[in-house]
Amino acid sequence: MDDSPMKSTSRRAFLKGGVAAGAAAAAAGQAQAEGDPLILEKQEWAQGLGDGVDATPYGLPIRFEKDVVRRNVEWLTADTISSINFTPIHALDGTITPQGCAFERHHSGAIELRKQDYRLMINGLVDTPLVFTYEDLERFPRENHVYFCECAANTGMEWAGAQLNGAQFTHGMIHNMEYTGVPLRALLNEAGISAETEGKWIYVEGADASSNGRSIPLEKALDDVLVAFKANGEALRKEHGYPVRLVVPGWEGNLWVKWLRRVEVTDAPIESREETSKYTDTLEDGTSRKWTWVMDAKSIVTSPSPQAPIMHGKGPLVITGLAWSGHGAITRVDVSKDGGKTWETARLAKPGEKMALTRFYLDTDWNGEEMLLQSRAIDETGYVQPTKDQLREVRGENSIYHNNCIQTWWIKPNGEAENVEVS
Amino acid sequence: MDDSPMKSTSRRAFLKGGVAAGAAAAAAGQAQAEGDPLILEKQEWAQGLGDGVDATPYGLPIRFEKDVVRRNVEWLTADTISSINFTPIHALDGTITPQGCAFERHHSGAIELRKQDYRLMINGLVDTPLVFTYEDLERFPRENHVYFCECAANTGMEWAGAQLNGAQFTHGMIHNMEYTGVPLRALLNEAGISAETEGKWIYVEGADASSNGRSIPLEKALDDVLVAFKANGEALRKEHGYPVRLVVPGWEGNLWVKWLRRVEVTDAPIESREETSKYTDTLEDGTSRKWTWVMDAKSIVTSPSPQAPIMHGKGPLVITGLAWSGHGAITRVDVSKDGGKTWETARLAKPGEKMALTRFYLDTDWNGEEMLLQSRAIDETGYVQPTKDQLREVRGENSIYHNNCIQTWWIKPNGEAENVEVS
Repeated sequence: MDDSPMKSTSRRAFLKGGVAAGAAAAAAGQAQAEGDPLILEKQEWAQGLGDGVDATPYGLPIRFEKDVVRRNVEWLTADTISSINFTPIHALDGTITPQGCAFERHHSGAIELRKQDYRLMINGLVDTPLVFTYEDLERFPRENHVYFCECAANTGMEWAGAQLNGAQFTHGMIHNMEYTGVPLRALLNEAGISAETEGKWIYVEGADASSNGRSIPLEKALDDVLVAFKANGEALRKEHGYPVRLVVPGWEGNLWVKWLRRVEVTDAPIESREETSKYTDTLEDGTSRKWTWVMDAKSIVTSPSPQAPIMHGKGPLVITGLAWSGHGAITRVDVSKDGGKTWETARLAKPGEKMALTRFYLDTDWNGEEMLLQSRAIDETGYVQPTKDQLREVRGENSIYHNNCIQTWWIKPNGEAENVEVS
Repeated sequence: MDDSPMKSTSRRAFLKGGVAAGAAAAAAGQAQAEGDPLILEKQEWAQGLGDGVDATPYGLPIRFEKDVVRRNVEWLTADTISSINFTPIHALDGTITPQGCAFERHHSGAIELRKQDYRLMINGLVDTPLVFTYEDLERFPRENHVYFCECAANTGMEWAGAQLNGAQFTHGMIHNMEYTGVPLRALLNEAGISAETEGKWIYVEGADASSNGRSIPLEKALDDVLVAFKANGEALRKEHGYPVRLVVPGWEGNLWVKWLRRVEVTDAPIESREETSKYTDTLEDGTSRKWTWVMDAKSIVTSPSPQAPIMHGKGPLVITGLAWSGHGAITRVDVSKDGGKTWETARLAKPGEKMALTRFYLDTDWNGEEMLLQSRAIDETGYVQPTKDQLREVRGENSIYHNNCIQTWWIKPNGEAENVEVS
């Protein structure tokens, strides 16, 4: 403590004159300009006692982060019942999405279903139809997996051009959580299904009024589908399907049926409303792509982006974003600053994991000139995320779903960013 | 849909008579006894519309989970300012701890510190003392890591015998989150510290009134210590040190200084209040163990446990818990049902990761007889979690901190559990 800067005139002078020296000083930001760093004074917050947390046994974010919340786009859905909330991915880092701000989509509202009232029926082409209580489910061997869940309509508005000005709105229908649950395989085996039966599909539905019924090939159901009751360690939130939802790794979010009520084994798909009038992709010639379950490899720069502009001027800059693939692990992410003419390989925070979000960083030095910022994901199958033009060539311009094209942010010299399209 | 059980008299009869058949039926629980499964009727929650989530842009757990919160033990701390909250580990699964219910310990209250007001000073034996703003920190290359944080006093009351009746209270001063931050190494290098300087330690302090100053060897500081600003993807909560805390992987929680204000490079430890009058371990002969930073390998059965009794009677039972080691990865967890006479190897949900919680499961069949349930962790160094007797032999009975002994839950024939000690 005998080396305290408070005692050293020369050092105090240095600090007054050279706040945020070193690499950081190369582009002194606005905060510094406000005056001396408060660290040299006895700060207000060090003079008294802070709050206890007994008043908030379950805590919420600090009030200064009140903007980091799910947001809606009013005109996207016709009514307040069928709504979409977007994850504030522009303000998050790492890979885990807290349940509290994880995007949420429902078709007839989020229902309140007590564990005591919960039942899961398995019926159809099985030896023994079964009804499980919540407690029954807890008695089967459990697994833990981190998976992303992406709405098929994520980035859907961007088919028509650069529409929504923010990563939260263009790419925020995604979240990534650690699920705990029972493999659906275990429950199906309990009901007595075997490879020799005529059952080739399952039909899953939720306990809400919409029921959101969807058909899934039995092969997937017996592979990695989970009947999940926890996310990020705790019970599923109401809007995420409490007490039980289906987790269908790598496949579109509407298959992840919430408030899961019934699994029927069938010999053919049901062709329900949710897989005919919705969640098929209309092509240029009027025909539709069907059963487009898998979410292809995709990525997005989350910062800088329209909601997360560069505030500190030129100099050291961390470009960061997320990448994912429904076909497996992300193996590489490239970043372009010139709209796709040249590419640099980004640093993955961790090796990619199957069907989970991967965080990438490009540690760079910004010269203060405008950039056309893009990212491009490559997955373990060798698949490369396409440009919007490449995607339109194959799919035409009638699509809503499965837009996994490369996104462009125009970074202006003042650090602000805008959603643009480049050819 | 033509195979609906609603149309089949015989199948309906089966369901009425044989609710929750199969493995689950082996021990039909209380829920089933209440009457027909609600799945055969048109349920209340499927008749109308649920809630939108626009009203809760940042969500909280459903009201049915209101008991899954941090809890205090009134008599453990003398005043309300210096308080401890315990994580409800008995009710969680997986490995991630949501910030909202992650245990929290402070010495003079949780302060509110805006990012604009935040400063981090690096001074002492460095070439160039520096002061960083929050924005400066965001310009350094970031890392992501999942680490556990355990209070040195976790399980501290149990030195005196079986005291607190619940895993939340005996082992709940721990949480496990995905941190995003800048290696402290990068900031120290920026200030110009090298292996040739006389600096061998750092002294870290927080911006709160207590400052909670602690000395840490420079070797650790240059290894894996993080200056973190995000946990589980989002900003640190106020009570977890918003906007910046230190993350000291594998080492006791009081070193993870919150509201991190200053890092001083010194040639010797400071011997602060927090490392002399507190956080040393008094032995049988009155001398003290010093610098006991590393949290040794430890584990706990979280369910069944006193707050999570067996409700479903005998038959299939999932025994689960957590294991961790400050020395590296957990490689094995054993479970005993007879107070340590015989052991079975548990299943790890995933291979153990360095300095992170590992979830284990033992899928078993309970015969309804009483059990003396224990778990025993083994880490990558070969270290085996000791019994309480073994620990007392070495450390005596004056200790508070670093109790990593094997815990025993007495499971009674009615499924209730109690904290007991076995010799």
